[in-house]
Amino acid sequence: MPPETRFKPRAIPPTLTPMLRALLLWLLLVLPARAEEPPLLVSGMGSFHIGGREATVTGRPVREVTLAPGARPVRIDPNGTYRVDGMYVQFHHPAQRRGRVPLLFWHGGGMTGVVWETTPDGREGWQTWFLRRGWSVYLSDAVERGRSGWAMFPDITPAEPIFLTMADPWERFRIGTGPGSWRSRSAIPGTQFPTDAYERFTAQLVPRWIVTDAAATEAYTQLLRQVGPAVVVAHAQGSLYALRAARADPGRVRALVLIEPTSFGAPEDLQALRGIPILALYGDFIEQDPRWSAVHERGAQFFEALRAAGGQAEAVDLPARDIRGNSHLMMMDRNNAQVAGVIQEWLAARGLWE
Amino acid sequence: MPPETRFKPRAIPPTLTPMLRALLLWLLLVLPARAEEPPLLVSGMGSFHIGGREATVTGRPVREVTLAPGARPVRIDPNGTYRVDGMYVQFHHPAQRRGRVPLLFWHGGGMTGVVWETTPDGREGWQTWFLRRGWSVYLSDAVERGRSGWAMFPDITPAEPIFLTMADPWERFRIGTGPGSWRSRSAIPGTQFPTDAYERFTAQLVPRWIVTDAAATEAYTQLLRQVGPAVVVAHAQGSLYALRAARADPGRVRALVLIEPTSFGAPEDLQALRGIPILALYGDFIEQDPRWSAVHERGAQFFEALRAAGGQAEAVDLPARDIRGNSHLMMMDRNNAQVAGVIQEWLAARGLWE
Repeated sequence: MPPETRFKPRAIPPTLTPMLRALLLWLLLVLPARAEEPPLLVSGMGSFHIGGREATVTGRPVREVTLAPGARPVRIDPNGTYRVDGMYVQFHHPAQRRGRVPLLFWHGGGMTGVVWETTPDGREGWQTWFLRRGWSVYLSDAVERGRSGWAMFPDITPAEPIFLTMADPWERFRIGTGPGSWRSRSAIPGTQFPTDAYERFTAQLVPRWIVTDAAATEAYTQLLRQVGPAVVVAHAQGSLYALRAARADPGRVRALVLIEPTSFGAPEDLQALRGIPILALYGDFIEQDPRWSAVHERGAQFFEALRAAGGQAEAVDLPARDIRGNSHLMMMDRNNAQVAGVIQEWLAARGLWE
Repeated sequence: MPPETRFKPRAIPPTLTPMLRALLLWLLLVLPARAEEPPLLVSGMGSFHIGGREATVTGRPVREVTLAPGARPVRIDPNGTYRVDGMYVQFHHPAQRRGRVPLLFWHGGGMTGVVWETTPDGREGWQTWFLRRGWSVYLSDAVERGRSGWAMFPDITPAEPIFLTMADPWERFRIGTGPGSWRSRSAIPGTQFPTDAYERFTAQLVPRWIVTDAAATEAYTQLLRQVGPAVVVAHAQGSLYALRAARADPGRVRALVLIEPTSFGAPEDLQALRGIPILALYGDFIEQDPRWSAVHERGAQFFEALRAAGGQAEAVDLPARDIRGNSHLMMMDRNNAQVAGVIQEWLAARGLWE
């Protein structure tokens, strides 16, 4: 007897099953797990690759390689056709849906979808925070990062990749006190970043290229076409892709949440964005850093231009709401649940959560 | 009012909540979702990076790079210290556990943990097949692959990576009819691989190195130490890591399932493996390919030596059980659920599932 047959109590008529399941799920979900947090219950999940193209390499020498100790040498001919520039997407569906459309989380430069998962110090990330509240959540790794895979360079991707040192995010993401601060591990007083877990965070950094923007935009646009209408939550570099994909297919985007967006694309293209509610969030210590002040200023100008064109864009400085200490990595800061709450409330106020 | 307060019915005393939750979950799980399959219900999930080290790069030139259109150029100094050789791990826990220990899935060369997720043609993979049956499931990306990130080469990883062409797995994994068969798309008659989705499958291939064996072994051994005792299900190259990690810490391994293992490590080290039940699975068409016949023969010799040393190793040729047509990628073949059933039955017979 295969083990799964044990799961079939014959007493319950199959027609009743869906109703009973719905009732039981509802009961489970109104029962608080630990009084404060709604329980996590995922009833659907999966993954796929989207987009991409074929690329051919010629003129490279053939190699003989032993792939594993004791194995026969294998002749590796690097010339041939490769599948490149695809994008990995993983999704989870809650047992009881309350979000009216899925939430798509698009990470920033040098990172992957992992930024939205468990925080480096082991707390809950935004992926499960929103799943608990009944949102379908899609994480993805941008083209050439993480599980999307990367292509031979300079043959296919015509440039060198960029690698982030351990010092770089510490000094550049408003965790440490600016250039040179990694050496002394000097952190901004009051930072919400879990600095004890900073080294563990750096394990999730991945190389990136700066010549793959078009391919990434294309893959994200395809993702929206496939799973939209949706809400896109984008971090830093991801915001550029979010704005571009929204311009390409505005009917597929119910709202955009931009976490410290760093660039905005063509300013003449604002009409397409008019119907999309946009929330931008900025953390703390911006004014202490000329680079972040400039990023913030560029955002202010863009949102102003968007409003002038009839759009609905709202930029929120978290300190103005008395939420203090946030770094550029606010989705993993110690108060990440509080910041998620700002997004959740804004989405609910726009009728996107029931 | 923050939205989550809606989840708190005050009528139910908090002390009753865990009992009620358990009762409801049990009811849900004895109710078949669609008569045949137990429902998927995940109540815990997360991810982390494990292992790794710091490595320093010197003597590379500084570059000025514009990270996003419109952004200020940034000075990128590639010299410095990097976090490298870590391993990404993602886990899901079922609402009602029936597996006595977690299942750790370790992928083969040129791939990532994605091989265990949804199949390229959109069917269920082994990750959720086993989750439905109450196993905790851990997927990981080997060191330098996927979300584990990769390091600068040759500075840190002292070799060139290997890239798999689209033709390579088709011709080498017993999907096509051997060398040269990709050009004509000629598939082995009776193959269970979803050949229509082969191109989509190639999107999940990633580059790999052959000089990172020690780092991968170290990360897998750490993973076992952290989440074991466990059952390890390993594919191809992953089998070498599974055997090595089991030798390093045999008390942490309740059973090993090796899917077409390609190498076995040091033959003198068999004593450590004696107490661990081992199941090896081989697909179809092995005898038609001299490379796979050799792989199969090496396995037979290893398992024979292990049994002679008092160990418990069982090699199953699926065709001998009338399960036909399986490629080297049996976890995504069309009959992948049937193959999973062989593993499930074997684990249940060893008291690892209740």
